[in-house]
Formats: sequence, structure tokens, C-alpha cells
Amino acid sequence: MSTPVQTTPGVDLDAYCYDLADRAVVAGRALTTISGAQRDQALRTIADLLEQRAADIIAANARDIARADEFGLTGAMVDRLRLDEARIKKMAASVRQIAAQTDPVGQVIEGYVRPNGLSIQKVRVPLGVVLFIYESRPNVTSDAAALCIKSANALILRGGKEAIFSNGAIAEVIREALDAAGLPGDAVQLVNTSDRAAVGKLLKLDGQIDVVIPRGGESLIRAVVKQSMIPVIKHYTGNCHVYVDEHAAALGAQQVVDICVNAKVQRPGVCNATESMLFHAEAGDLLKQVATALIAEGIELRGCERTCKLIDGVKPAGEEDWSTEFLDKIVALKVVDTLDEAVAHINRYGSRHTDAILTADVRAADAFVQRVDTANVMVNCSTRFSDGGEYGLGAEIGISTDKLHARGPMGAADMTTYKWVVRGSGQIRN
Amino acid sequence: MSTPVQTTPGVDLDAYCYDLADRAVVAGRALTTISGAQRDQALRTIADLLEQRAADIIAANARDIARADEFGLTGAMVDRLRLDEARIKKMAASVRQIAAQTDPVGQVIEGYVRPNGLSIQKVRVPLGVVLFIYESRPNVTSDAAALCIKSANALILRGGKEAIFSNGAIAEVIREALDAAGLPGDAVQLVNTSDRAAVGKLLKLDGQIDVVIPRGGESLIRAVVKQSMIPVIKHYTGNCHVYVDEHAAALGAQQVVDICVNAKVQRPGVCNATESMLFHAEAGDLLKQVATALIAEGIELRGCERTCKLIDGVKPAGEEDWSTEFLDKIVALKVVDTLDEAVAHINRYGSRHTDAILTADVRAADAFVQRVDTANVMVNCSTRFSDGGEYGLGAEIGISTDKLHARGPMGAADMTTYKWVVRGSGQIRN
Repeated sequence: MSTPVQTTPGVDLDAYCYDLADRAVVAGRALTTISGAQRDQALRTIADLLEQRAADIIAANARDIARADEFGLTGAMVDRLRLDEARIKKMAASVRQIAAQTDPVGQVIEGYVRPNGLSIQKVRVPLGVVLFIYESRPNVTSDAAALCIKSANALILRGGKEAIFSNGAIAEVIREALDAAGLPGDAVQLVNTSDRAAVGKLLKLDGQIDVVIPRGGESLIRAVVKQSMIPVIKHYTGNCHVYVDEHAAALGAQQVVDICVNAKVQRPGVCNATESMLFHAEAGDLLKQVATALIAEGIELRGCERTCKLIDGVKPAGEEDWSTEFLDKIVALKVVDTLDEAVAHINRYGSRHTDAILTADVRAADAFVQRVDTANVMVNCSTRFSDGGEYGLGAEIGISTDKLHARGPMGAADMTTYKWVVRGSGQIRN
Repeated sequence: MSTPVQTTPGVDLDAYCYDLADRAVVAGRALTTISGAQRDQALRTIADLLEQRAADIIAANARDIARADEFGLTGAMVDRLRLDEARIKKMAASVRQIAAQTDPVGQVIEGYVRPNGLSIQKVRVPLGVVLFIYESRPNVTSDAAALCIKSANALILRGGKEAIFSNGAIAEVIREALDAAGLPGDAVQLVNTSDRAAVGKLLKLDGQIDVVIPRGGESLIRAVVKQSMIPVIKHYTGNCHVYVDEHAAALGAQQVVDICVNAKVQRPGVCNATESMLFHAEAGDLLKQVATALIAEGIELRGCERTCKLIDGVKPAGEEDWSTEFLDKIVALKVVDTLDEAVAHINRYGSRHTDAILTADVRAADAFVQRVDTANVMVNCSTRFSDGGEYGLGAEIGISTDKLHARGPMGAADMTTYKWVVRGSGQIRN
């Protein structure tokens, strides 16, 4: 059984964090000499053990669920926290899918020979040590571990206190699989103190930890950025948009309605759910049909002045509604006169996560794709596809809203950097 | 003539910085819709104007040189600061070489179709707004501008006070070329206040500026990292190594001596010059020959105990010598018993910049390449090749010692991010 350790009085937290990071460095160095086949074997063993130990993991999860009230979790949060046989099977399936991917480590990204005969290659290598700070969903624990093992990185996991028993049980399975496959056990470590100060201390260890990935609420991420001396890849909010263009009607009203409804209703509380829908003034009929369908699904509508005039029962939207990630059964609706206006609105209020255009006009689609400044830009499909699994990455360690290093869903290859490998035959520089 | 503005009392620095960044955002957005041909035209015009205005630029540079004493610049620093006809021709040549490269913007990095018919592409796009903070060499001004124009980024330049007139004159030429080619003039802006507080204020504008690249001394970079809310790509010191393996003799002593001498002597004060040389115990003869050649070149040698026993006139090296970037005519020498020991030494004391092995044994070369954690790992050539120009990038905005986003010499393609572009035909998620 998992036994998360509370900080014992007298234990030196600085020493604990330094030692944790140092073990990760040693494990990371060792991982670089372990073959992809062996790392994949560890992944398949994790998948098998997750399924074999499902009962233990569910029991540990029940201990977390029992404490949910204590932490003031909402019903939706408890649902995200809960593990059952089916969810554990899905976790194992993700791990197996990652095991089946091509090894990113050692890939030659680019290679050429210079006029002086020097052979120059950019070769993918692991980042080294990854610190992953996350909340709530325990399936993220196995996803993150699988992506880091695949990419030969050592991982330090700092989950939320509300999932401490679940994460402990999953981490135990991972360590057993690492041992069985001959990988260093410290390749995946869980921070096993609930002392909040540990995160602050880890964030100063830029000599040992190569990257920090916080995944959770915006306040968590801002706090990490503020404290960290280590580069951070941020995963901010998803204030996603669907823009229904003046040439959308040719797609057929049903397709437009289906996409709009799916983009909000299928899972209203996730980051790639759509929060605002913009309609070209010529698409007023579509606006009415979409609004009717959304109301039928129990979605609350908040509209601009023109929307309110067109449709009954729409609340007037305030300025703050355009920049809000509702994460709820609410949509903001706005009528625009041009594609330019839609693009400007999204670039102003959006969070650079995922934004879609519905149109039959290729010029409108291309203009939107080029000009909206966002990680994921979509044409004629639901924003809900913005996801590592849907993109074929097996899982994602997060959806980066940063522009540096990785943008959008991050898979195993995004957990790598590269080396320039230069091979010569005695060249010197003049 | 360039006229750098000192902050006028009464001018609001916050407003100035915000406005500067805002102009950059607008220029950056405009650049995304300007063709590669037009951007290349601007680059060729910059190159032409640099040559045509050489006399003006040299006159401005003379004003900086005249103030060098005031800023306490050393002889080497004054040399780096000085512009002449030949150096300006080289600046123009770099700009022309960048103009001739393939446009990185719009490149499809990856593209595939998912089983549900969604077409998914990762497409290169500009980062947006780049803040570049640098010291001394004014040629860096045109290099950075050229790389950012090539990659369709807006650039804010903050040069050192010691080069303020030179940078102003070069920036003026750049603005004229941007105007002539129909590009937004604000695509390249110089921070034209010498108020040091301006940098601190710009570093808080994470809503407008996408990346900060500081290039200069370690204290400058550390100060930027500490203050910045914007992601920083760091260019720390180059504590570079050459390891002469036990199988190096088969290369011929002359090749080993030539490479070692070139790695230190050709330009001792730059970041890719070698600071420490490690010799396998079996390569004692090579150590003697290299030491003799280095002494003949006027290099001061500091050695481990075994080196001091082997060679006369070597000062004992202290622990701090192994981690020092001398940037001077000094080399630290150490005898090691194994390749493992060499790798461990470099991973401990190196700065992850550039490290080379000299060996005739392919297994030793491969082990070194795999296990040394460095941006540039070289086999049988001089560390001095670690350079954007030598790699064929035309120029470099710096040599990143970071692992995130870009590592080693950074060219125009490294000034881009990507968008996921997803094209569907009505897909919704189940």
C-alpha cells in the first residue's frame, strides 16, 4: 500500500529536495545509455501491472475520495479524481500506445556536410530531469511517467494533496516495473512530503532540474513562474473560440450545429471546450439554430447586443465574459461583421489555446489559419480534438500555451532537446 | 546621424516601454502577412545600405570609441567594439546569406492524417516579439535584425551603452530598408533610452513580448532571468573541453597538436575557445607535444599533479580552474585514466557549451558523443567551429546553453514556433 510521508519534524527539507533532484540527475544520466527496447519493455510492464493491481489502486483512490470533502472538492472534481476498472484500463492503453511509438531519442532532426567536410547533425536527446507539478486527475501520473520513460528523462512528480494515495499507488507500480525492466528506480520519483515549501525549494534547483511543467489552475502556474529559476513550460487556460463564417451555410446547417454543440457540450469543463462563438452577420440563421440546440442541451447563453436582439432568452454578455474560461455549461455569443473582426476578437480575448473556423470558403479558412495567433487552429471540426490522444501522441504531458519549445499538446518527442554532433577529420578554423 | 535619446525628466518610462512593446506587437502581426520575398528584399536592402553608409556608421562608431575610457573598456573590448570598412562588409555579407536561405515561416514540420480523416500539420510560425539584450559588438545588431526579419518576428534591441551611437546608426539603416521594402518600420526598434530601469520594465511585459534573449556576461543573464516574467533563452559561458583519448595517437601527433592549438589560440577570448584539455594517461607523449606548442604560442598552462610532473613550467591548477572560463591565453590540463573519467569531469565542470574528443577509435567517439551533456559535441575537430556561421546558419542570435527550445547556435529557424493546423470535414468528438 502507498504510504505518503508527511514531513517529519527535524527532517531537513532542503536536504530532502536536493537529494531527490540529485537522484533524478543520476537516473537521467543512466537512462541515456539504456536502449529504447528496454524502455519500451518497462512501459509494457507498467501497463500490465496497472491492470493487475487495479484493485489496490482503486482502494488507494477510495482513501482520497473519502477525504474529498476535507479539501472542498466539487462534484466535478471528485469525478475527475475517481478511478475505476475502466479508467485504469484506459491508463494502461495509453502507456501501451506510447510504448509502441518510434523512439524519439537519437532521431536525426537535420544533418548535412559543410564545404570543409565537417558532418553536422542535430540529434534528439532527452532533456534530463523533468519536474511535473499537477492537480487532481491521477491518470496524469501514469501518462507523464510513460512519456518521460519513453523519452529517457528522469521525472519528479508533485501531485495534488487530494490525490496523494492514488498517486502513491500508481508510483509504486511504476517503480516495480522500472526495477523489473532494469531501469533505474529513481527514474520516476514522487515528492513524498505534503510540505508546500518543497515546491519552492525544488524550483531553485536549476543546476539539476532542466524543465518544470505545471499543469493546473492559472494561480498555480503563475506561482511556479514567479518562483522558478528553472525554465517553465506553461499550460494556461483554454478560452477557445468557434467562428462561424459568412460561408458556413454551404457546409449544411446540421454540420455547423453538430460542431458547435460538440465543442461546448461534450465535456464543458475541459480546456479545449469552446467558451465563445462568433457568428458572421450573414450567418444569423445559423446563429439561431445553434442557439436553439445549445439551449436544448441546457447551456446558458450570454450574448452581445445583436445576439440578444436576434434570440430570446440570451443574457447580455459583459466585457469580462469574452475573456472568461467558463469551464461550465455557458457560452458567450457575438455577431461580427467581418472575418477581420473575428480574428481581432480572438487575438484580443483568446488564450492562444484552440480556435476554429467553420467555413466552406478556402480563402477564409486560410486567412483564419494564418492570422489567429493560437496553438491549435482548426477548420471545420470541433475544438475538442485539441488533445494529445486525438493527435496520435498516445497521451500528453499537457497542452502548452507557451510559444517556446513546445506548443499545444506535448508528447514524448516534446520532452527532448537536441545536441549538435559535429564529426571532423582534423579540421581547424582559420 | 544617430541621436540616442537620454530619458527626459518627465517622460513616463512605463508608458514608453509599453508603447514600444505595443508597436512591436502590431508590427509582428503585420509581418505574418508579408511574403518571404518581400522580407528577403528588405534584407538585401539592409546589406546594400550598410555598405553605402559605411562612412556614417564608422563616424558614429568613432563617437563610441572616443567614450570607451569613460566606460572602462579593456583593449580587447575596444577591439570588439570597433567597426571598419572590412567589418561592415562582413556584416552585409551575413545579411545577404540570411536573405538567401529558405524561408522558415510556413514550413510543415510534420503532417499526417488521423484515422477519422482529420489532417494534422505542425506549421512553423514566427514567435512574435523578441527582446534582445546584448553588449558590445555592434555587428550583432544587424545579425539579430536580419535573423528576426527572416523569421518574420518583431525585434526590440537593447544594446550596451558603450555601443549606443554605433547601434543607432545601424538601426537607422535598418529602418530605412524596412520602409523601402514596405515592411513595418517598427519591426526593428532600438530602446532609445539609457535608463537602466527600462529593461526591468520590459521584462514584465509578458503579454506583449514572447521571448527574451540576453547575450553578454553571466551577471547580465542572471539578472534578466531573475526579473523576467517572459521566457528567457540563456547564453551562458563557454567552458569548453578537448579530450585527447588513448586512441588519439593514431590520428598523428600533428593533427592533435593543430586542433588543440587552434581550439585555444585562434581566438582565446571567445566562448567556443577551449579552456581545459584532458589527456588519457596513455597519451602522455601527446600531452607533452601539445604543451610545448601551447607554450610556444604564449599560453599559460595550469595542470593537475600528474601534468605538473610530466611537464616543466606548468603551474598547479586549483579546483576553481576546472570551472573557469578564462577567456584568455590560459589552459588547464588534466590527466585522466579513462574515458569515463573524462566524461564525468566535463559533465561536472563544463558549461554544456562545446566539448570535443580526439580519437581514432569509433567506440570511444560514440561513447563520448552520447554521454557528454553538452550543446555541441565534436569529434576530431576544433571547438572553434561551434558557431552559427560555421554551421551554415548565416549568423547566430547567440549560442544557447539552455536545453529548452533551442540549443547551441541559433539561426532564423530557431526564432520560430509552430501552430498545429487541423483541417476537418465536420468531425466531432465522441
